[in-house]
Amino acid sequence: MDKNFWTDLLKKVAEGSISTEEALKQLEFLPYQDLEFAKIDHHRHIRSGFPEVIFCQGKTPEQTAEIFYHLSLHHSPILATRADNQAFLAVQRRCPEAQYNSEARCITIGHSSAEIKNKYILVVSAGTADSPVAEEAAFCAEVMKCPVKRLFDVGVAGIHRLLNNRESLQNAEVIIVVAGMEGALASVVGGLTDKPVIAVPTSVGYGASFGGLAALLAMLNSCAMGVGVVNIDNGFGAAALARSIFRLGVT
Amino acid sequence: MDKNFWTDLLKKVAEGSISTEEALKQLEFLPYQDLEFAKIDHHRHIRSGFPEVIFCQGKTPEQTAEIFYHLSLHHSPILATRADNQAFLAVQRRCPEAQYNSEARCITIGHSSAEIKNKYILVVSAGTADSPVAEEAAFCAEVMKCPVKRLFDVGVAGIHRLLNNRESLQNAEVIIVVAGMEGALASVVGGLTDKPVIAVPTSVGYGASFGGLAALLAMLNSCAMGVGVVNIDNGFGAAALARSIFRLGVT
Amino acid sequence: MDKNFWTDLLKKVAEGSISTEEALKQLEFLPYQDLEFAKIDHHRHIRSGFPEVIFCQGKTPEQTAEIFYHLSLHHSPILATRADNQAFLAVQRRCPEAQYNSEARCITIGHSSAEIKNKYILVVSAGTADSPVAEEAAFCAEVMKCPVKRLFDVGVAGIHRLLNNRESLQNAEVIIVVAGMEGALASVVGGLTDKPVIAVPTSVGYGASFGGLAALLAMLNSCAMGVGVVNIDNGFGAAALARSIFRLGVT
Amino acid sequence: MDKNFWTDLLKKVAEGSISTEEALKQLEFLPYQDLEFAKIDHHRHIRSGFPEVIFCQGKTPEQTAEIFYHLSLHHSPILATRADNQAFLAVQRRCPEAQYNSEARCITIGHSSAEIKNKYILVVSAGTADSPVAEEAAFCAEVMKCPVKRLFDVGVAGIHRLLNNRESLQNAEVIIVVAGMEGALASVVGGLTDKPVIAVPTSVGYGASFGGLAALLAMLNSCAMGVGVVNIDNGFGAAALARSIFRLGVT
Amino acid sequence: MDKNFWTDLLKKVAEGSISTEEALKQLEFLPYQDLEFAKIDHHRHIRSGFPEVIFCQGKTPEQTAEIFYHLSLHHSPILATRADNQAFLAVQRRCPEAQYNSEARCITIGHSSAEIKNKYILVVSAGTADSPVAEEAAFCAEVMKCPVKRLFDVGVAGIHRLLNNRESLQNAEVIIVVAGMEGALASVVGGLTDKPVIAVPTSVGYGASFGGLAALLAMLNSCAMGVGVVNIDNGFGAAALARSIFRLGVT
Amino acid sequence: MDKNFWTDLLKKVAEGSISTEEALKQLEFLPYQDLEFAKIDHHRHIRSGFPEVIFCQGKTPEQTAEIFYHLSLHHSPILATRADNQAFLAVQRRCPEAQYNSEARCITIGHSSAEIKNKYILVVSAGTADSPVAEEAAFCAEVMKCPVKRLFDVGVAGIHRLLNNRESLQNAEVIIVVAGMEGALASVVGGLTDKPVIAVPTSVGYGASFGGLAALLAMLNSCAMGVGVVNIDNGFGAAALARSIFRLGVT
Amino acid sequence: MDKNFWTDLLKKVAEGSISTEEALKQLEFLPYQDLEFAKIDHHRHIRSGFPEVIFCQGKTPEQTAEIFYHLSLHHSPILATRADNQAFLAVQRRCPEAQYNSEARCITIGHSSAEIKNKYILVVSAGTADSPVAEEAAFCAEVMKCPVKRLFDVGVAGIHRLLNNRESLQNAEVIIVVAGMEGALASVVGGLTDKPVIAVPTSVGYGASFGGLAALLAMLNSCAMGVGVVNIDNGFGAAALARSIFRLGVT
Amino acid sequence: MDKNFWTDLLKKVAEGSISTEEALKQLEFLPYQDLEFAKIDHHRHIRSGFPEVIFCQGKTPEQTAEIFYHLSLHHSPILATRADNQAFLAVQRRCPEAQYNSEARCITIGHSSAEIKNKYILVVSAGTADSPVAEEAAFCAEVMKCPVKRLFDVGVAGIHRLLNNRESLQNAEVIIVVAGMEGALASVVGGLTDKPVIAVPTSVGYGASFGGLAALLAMLNSCAMGVGVVNIDNGFGAAALARSIFRLGVT
Repeated sequence: MDKNFWTDLLKKVAEGSISTEEALKQLEFLPYQDLEFAKIDHHRHIRSGFPEVIFCQGKTPEQTAEIFYHLSLHHSPILATRADNQAFLAVQRRCPEAQYNSEARCITIGHSSAEIKNKYILVVSAGTADSPVAEEAAFCAEVMKCPVKRLFDVGVAGIHRLLNNRESLQNAEVIIVVAGMEGALASVVGGLTDKPVIAVPTSVGYGASFGGLAALLAMLNSCAMGVGVVNIDNGFGAAALARSIFRLGVT
Repeated sequence: MDKNFWTDLLKKVAEGSISTEEALKQLEFLPYQDLEFAKIDHHRHIRSGFPEVIFCQGKTPEQTAEIFYHLSLHHSPILATRADNQAFLAVQRRCPEAQYNSEARCITIGHSSAEIKNKYILVVSAGTADSPVAEEAAFCAEVMKCPVKRLFDVGVAGIHRLLNNRESLQNAEVIIVVAGMEGALASVVGGLTDKPVIAVPTSVGYGASFGGLAALLAMLNSCAMGVGVVNIDNGFGAAALARSIFRLGVT
Repeated sequence: MDKNFWTDLLKKVAEGSISTEEALKQLEFLPYQDLEFAKIDHHRHIRSGFPEVIFCQGKTPEQTAEIFYHLSLHHSPILATRADNQAFLAVQRRCPEAQYNSEARCITIGHSSAEIKNKYILVVSAGTADSPVAEEAAFCAEVMKCPVKRLFDVGVAGIHRLLNNRESLQNAEVIIVVAGMEGALASVVGGLTDKPVIAVPTSVGYGASFGGLAALLAMLNSCAMGVGVVNIDNGFGAAALARSIFRLGVT
Repeated sequence: MDKNFWTDLLKKVAEGSISTEEALKQLEFLPYQDLEFAKIDHHRHIRSGFPEVIFCQGKTPEQTAEIFYHLSLHHSPILATRADNQAFLAVQRRCPEAQYNSEARCITIGHSSAEIKNKYILVVSAGTADSPVAEEAAFCAEVMKCPVKRLFDVGVAGIHRLLNNRESLQNAEVIIVVAGMEGALASVVGGLTDKPVIAVPTSVGYGASFGGLAALLAMLNSCAMGVGVVNIDNGFGAAALARSIFRLGVT
Repeated sequence: MDKNFWTDLLKKVAEGSISTEEALKQLEFLPYQDLEFAKIDHHRHIRSGFPEVIFCQGKTPEQTAEIFYHLSLHHSPILATRADNQAFLAVQRRCPEAQYNSEARCITIGHSSAEIKNKYILVVSAGTADSPVAEEAAFCAEVMKCPVKRLFDVGVAGIHRLLNNRESLQNAEVIIVVAGMEGALASVVGGLTDKPVIAVPTSVGYGASFGGLAALLAMLNSCAMGVGVVNIDNGFGAAALARSIFRLGVT
Repeated sequence: MDKNFWTDLLKKVAEGSISTEEALKQLEFLPYQDLEFAKIDHHRHIRSGFPEVIFCQGKTPEQTAEIFYHLSLHHSPILATRADNQAFLAVQRRCPEAQYNSEARCITIGHSSAEIKNKYILVVSAGTADSPVAEEAAFCAEVMKCPVKRLFDVGVAGIHRLLNNRESLQNAEVIIVVAGMEGALASVVGGLTDKPVIAVPTSVGYGASFGGLAALLAMLNSCAMGVGVVNIDNGFGAAALARSIFRLGVT
Repeated sequence: MDKNFWTDLLKKVAEGSISTEEALKQLEFLPYQDLEFAKIDHHRHIRSGFPEVIFCQGKTPEQTAEIFYHLSLHHSPILATRADNQAFLAVQRRCPEAQYNSEARCITIGHSSAEIKNKYILVVSAGTADSPVAEEAAFCAEVMKCPVKRLFDVGVAGIHRLLNNRESLQNAEVIIVVAGMEGALASVVGGLTDKPVIAVPTSVGYGASFGGLAALLAMLNSCAMGVGVVNIDNGFGAAALARSIFRLGVT
Repeated sequence: MDKNFWTDLLKKVAEGSISTEEALKQLEFLPYQDLEFAKIDHHRHIRSGFPEVIFCQGKTPEQTAEIFYHLSLHHSPILATRADNQAFLAVQRRCPEAQYNSEARCITIGHSSAEIKNKYILVVSAGTADSPVAEEAAFCAEVMKCPVKRLFDVGVAGIHRLLNNRESLQNAEVIIVVAGMEGALASVVGGLTDKPVIAVPTSVGYGASFGGLAALLAMLNSCAMGVGVVNIDNGFGAAALARSIFRLGVT
């Protein structure tokens, strides 16, 4: 891929169509070329369904809005995660068509969810308190043009709820499991399927959950095979990984 | 109960059958009286099926054997836990009738297992590597005269194994769940029954199990109700708690 | 128990009173049957004194009120734990008869405490700062139709307070010990009784208590036998476990 | 799938070819039916390239050999992980054709590596000390019939080594990154590709690596998107996850 | 240096110009001499470009202003770190010429940045969220009269941004690397240069970053040579260390 | 001491001046007798200079005021620690003569500081941010009738400040060292004296101080002999221990 | 004390008995003077009963023996702690009169235990497994010429054992409490006495005792007043602190 | 620097002295060119005094010897760290001139220590148990051609030892402080000098030192300015950082 750039450049030098000095200059501007490449890379991202992503946490509403606006001039869709309502209002002032998914805490523009045909990502959550993280995972995956099925509130304390949806598990391409407290759902799901399972520990719980540490350790130690873990509450990260896996199966 | 002691003492003083000084002396010897009381307490323990227990870890084989021998002169049964083979050989030299359960790492004398009628303690374990702790729990409970059923190697990675034994769960008086790694089995069992569940995390696992910490935290954060947790690898502790619960149901 | 369902179904098929297809349909609707079963399970719960429970933490007052209202249409009693005053006000608007125990932070409807006869659950707490968790444990157990005795503020720094209540300890069916700081009370109580002890570490303390970790570790390492531990501040969890134990002794 | 079982059973009952009692009996034997099902499941595993796996750690050489032998009567290939040389010698006595990959610490029988065509799993490792875990990952994936490329010793302290192999990264279906110490390699690889990245922290390091904790936390907090983490030193787990992902792309 | 003091004192005693008693008195007043020495030390600090520094965190705005004012009577420049806007307003009331760098959260008076000639300290940061700490490091170094270059937002997820600035790395005297999340930037920078690298972990991140612990451990375990680590978010500490190193190269 | 009670009781029984039943009743009321004893104990406390102490943290201002008021009816002095200004205002409404030491966050009534003669407790602190804890220690010791000297802001970064006060260290009976951050002051003080040193880690610091953990661990690992450690920020605890030591030297 | 040195020196200079240069030289040799001073300090130590102490852990038997021998030429008694049998044999070859206390793991020469009169240090231990640390504390205190009483194996699981020795507690000058597992003994002892309590957590326990962390945290969080904590298993440290306290009461 | 390569290449292409294809080939072989570059880089290392370094931990003696031998064919000096005696014997068989510093656990060939003139690195250690790490730091710095002064066993428990060597501190270019236990030495040294201080926590200590964690945290939280920390026991890392700093001052 890179070879074309080099081949072209060298050919031009050999032909004398550009001087040694000019060619050298282009090489010196490789950072800029890299910036060019970065743009091409963005195009590739868009082509493959991956939006520009802004992580709002730690940014002021104004900063978020400014970045969102400038990105929206050149790219589509745009996705901003960990956005509170104030961030959305600031974005909306700059981009009136921006939309807000309040449960997933995501701002988007220019996205349209994929239709579920026979292949889909399944997002499973343990309890209602895990829903914001699960919805972040599900919605972000949708913005990345992946069809998504949701199976929420099927924690292991009432395992028949999960067993009754065994078919949904078996037919998914990749499964995101979102659970706090003891995080046992990842192991149970992992034991019921041989599809890739992405486990998202949440900070739901109290006392000795230590902000999600209990669920995190449980998921890392899962007795089921084929479970990969992302950071605590990292719904977007799970979606990004799920998408990179899902693309393998559809192309 | 204590009142009798006081009543008798005071009566004797009132009758003049013992002098004030003698009574005072008895009170001064209360430590000794307490030791007497402690003996009575041992009798009560024996009556209720609770053996004398020696915790061998951190004792030399000779120390273990010495204590075992002296206890065996006055009590029966005797139970020594965390005993390795050398400890057993030392005990055997003093007490030729002592027996060794090598998987549970327990030495006993004078015990006879209770027959399982309709009520029993159920010991459930997740994997074969958890068996030593599970067997310690089961065997210690048997030495304490509790009928015990074993249901080993039914971890959540193959949940049908557990579901097929749902009846055993539902009919138990109290259930001990022994699991390492992510310890999810406690939550799943707790969700399938409303009997008291005693969870024993084991140090089975590697990497981020941190010597059983992962299972311990998971069990403490169980989303199922009615789960009490004992120390990592503490099979005997689980048995002692199970016995104290079991006695309520049979008396 | 389950057999009846199967027996009935198979009989009807054998009799021709329902067709194979219809029977198959019922089996396909097992999720729904499970929901039916869940209802039966609820009935069993109610029968055995176990209320529907809502965990309010992480829910908006409106969400809590909505769930509370819908449950109250079909079940009684209802118990909502970790409820602040705002949650109660929201519930009260939907269910004017709901009541609030502000110390235990519980909302209930339709509950009546059991009378203490000869058998009871004893709730022991170390200091006044542990009272909210202790009261949560005591009140929840009462809502679950268990008779409860309270013995508060008997921490080990003034051990005579505890020793003077030895009789209460000895006569209880099961004892819940609630303590923060160094959590030593669980070991001392466990040493004074052979009844099941449920230890609840609290986040009371400062500095190196690390949010209840010190008490939690102490309780897990108790030198007394027969102590099971629940999560930090988990008064409800202790009550649920105590109830499952208490039921064994009274049926 | 399950429906056939039910349909057949119900039909037979409707036809009278089996009695209600017999049918009920079969339902009671569902555990056994499940065992049948489990066998079918094994067949499915074999069909899809997944071997029977024995985790040797915590088993005696004799136990390992016994399990290995019995599995080898019915299945092929067999894979035993975390096996030391003594375990291999014990296995070899029972199964003379068994083979040992000493670096990966794996015993196998009946496996033949897949040829690398255009699709492959790439296993990248940071340093020579990470090689045993990396080789475990690579070899296990091969035993599971996945083509595997190895790119070892390309840690970030000499980043040109990695950059010069950018093409290998871009052409892989899924990438396993094995690194100890600070685990930075996962982030750098994740930044250079949009393929799924499975990060395996290793316990390589000293001092404040705390047995792999430093690398584990780093990988969980990776600033690159699309990184899933498995347990410390868990090369087999990474391989199992990689295989479940790889299968999506080749079927 | 100290010898002069002693030499003078002893000479005076030998000459009889001061009595033994007076000399003894001076020795007794050594604390005061030390205070004198401390003043001389301040002068040395000023001479070498090191300002008086006030750490504002945990001080009231009034306390900060009071200390700032009194120091400004005798010294220049003055630097106050971890200062919020209220602290600045309070200082400004006492010292109207004081200036505030809001991103670095520093108040200064009397400082003028050094011009960058051929030698400079380079401050590199991973993401925009790390900027406050990076700016604190850069600005404090400038107040200490060190020329500073900034290279912000060059995290390893897009490693070409860093590689394109390799020259800046190679020409720096000492490099401060500021990064949160997994802190991998320190290792990558350390691998690209043989200049001293000072790594500053930041508390940027969420979930299992545990307030900067992940980045801290990663930096301590860096596979690159020549990396020294300061406390989490400690931009000033990094600047102070960088300055003490930089001075070696310019004198 | 207890003997008198028993002797009297037994004598009365022997004399017939009280009946067996009455004596038995008194024994049944032993809890109350113990309460009597507790009062005598309070008298002993007051006699030895130890006040009644209320720990305000976790109590409402009203609760604090109520307890304070009732204690003040029978005892003097009264000491309330960890009291904020609102608690003081509430106490003041009930006890207009109560006084507030805002830096130590203590409310008192009826206390008068001891004069420093030749023996005293020395309270040493590292930085100005450690002053509240140091003042709590110093003031509480004063309320307990111990003479106290303060030596604040003598941290090891400017060790001459400490060395110049070596005499104060050597002449103290017992030394309380209050320090946050790295807590090195305890070791340096411990190396300069052979008097008992009580080390109080404070939560002063940021980043990897982890709320005082760094100082706590440092103090526990002190290379100096004769250092005892109390909980993080526990100025009162240090004072109580210092007082119990100081009393040995003055009686 | 130091003044004499200075006075002499200055006098000699004033008298001309030494030249300025020579005096200056002496000041330059202050390190050496300090070494002299150190010797004087040792004499003071010996005078006050404090022996020379060698910490053997991490030293070879030969190193220990070498240091022991050289110290024994000039000082008495000598104490070597954490010494195993091999260290003793090596010492014995150099110093045939050296003695070994195998339980305390201490080698000594030239020590004679103090007789217990009315004042003593009390060493209390919880279980037999804590005895080595308790004996180290007791023996080291004896070598330091403090009278010591031992009260071993009085853990809180059988609290009457402790209560029956209340008098020993009340008559001690200072109490060392040695306990592992949950460390509750420190709080109970602290509640029964107002004497200084030195708590020594031990690494006795298993599972979640985490090498003594559970006991350490418990002791730091003791609800009893007047408890100071030393490092895990640090019997010698407790003895050194106890001795520095005990000396206050006897001089 | 890199430009020359590009300029030459492009010139040759422009001149026609190499064809486009050949030039392209060279670019394709950039990995190899990079290896060439790596060699040049090694030359630069050797020129600047930096040896080839082998980290032996986790390598077999044979692996170490093999790598050592091959490096010794092309480079000098060679340094192998964390080498035990067996590693040395294996190396010696291949390279008979290799030498072993057993305290520093380093194998070298071809190194000659630099003479100390006016500039030097100072290595300070707290106790004799810290010597191996301190010697590793000192020796490695010497192998890297830096003059090194050693100041061992000057821990803060006897602070006069350090104060008497204040001059050595003040004249050093950079100071490495090696300390275990509470690590206070780094703060005290940092307070006595304004030279760069590199702090090396060691795992020396027991109990709550948690393998060097206590010293590590203390050093990170040092109240002294200008302290950078490396990994626990990482003497080599400190030397590498010290060398990169030292070079600034001498060139």
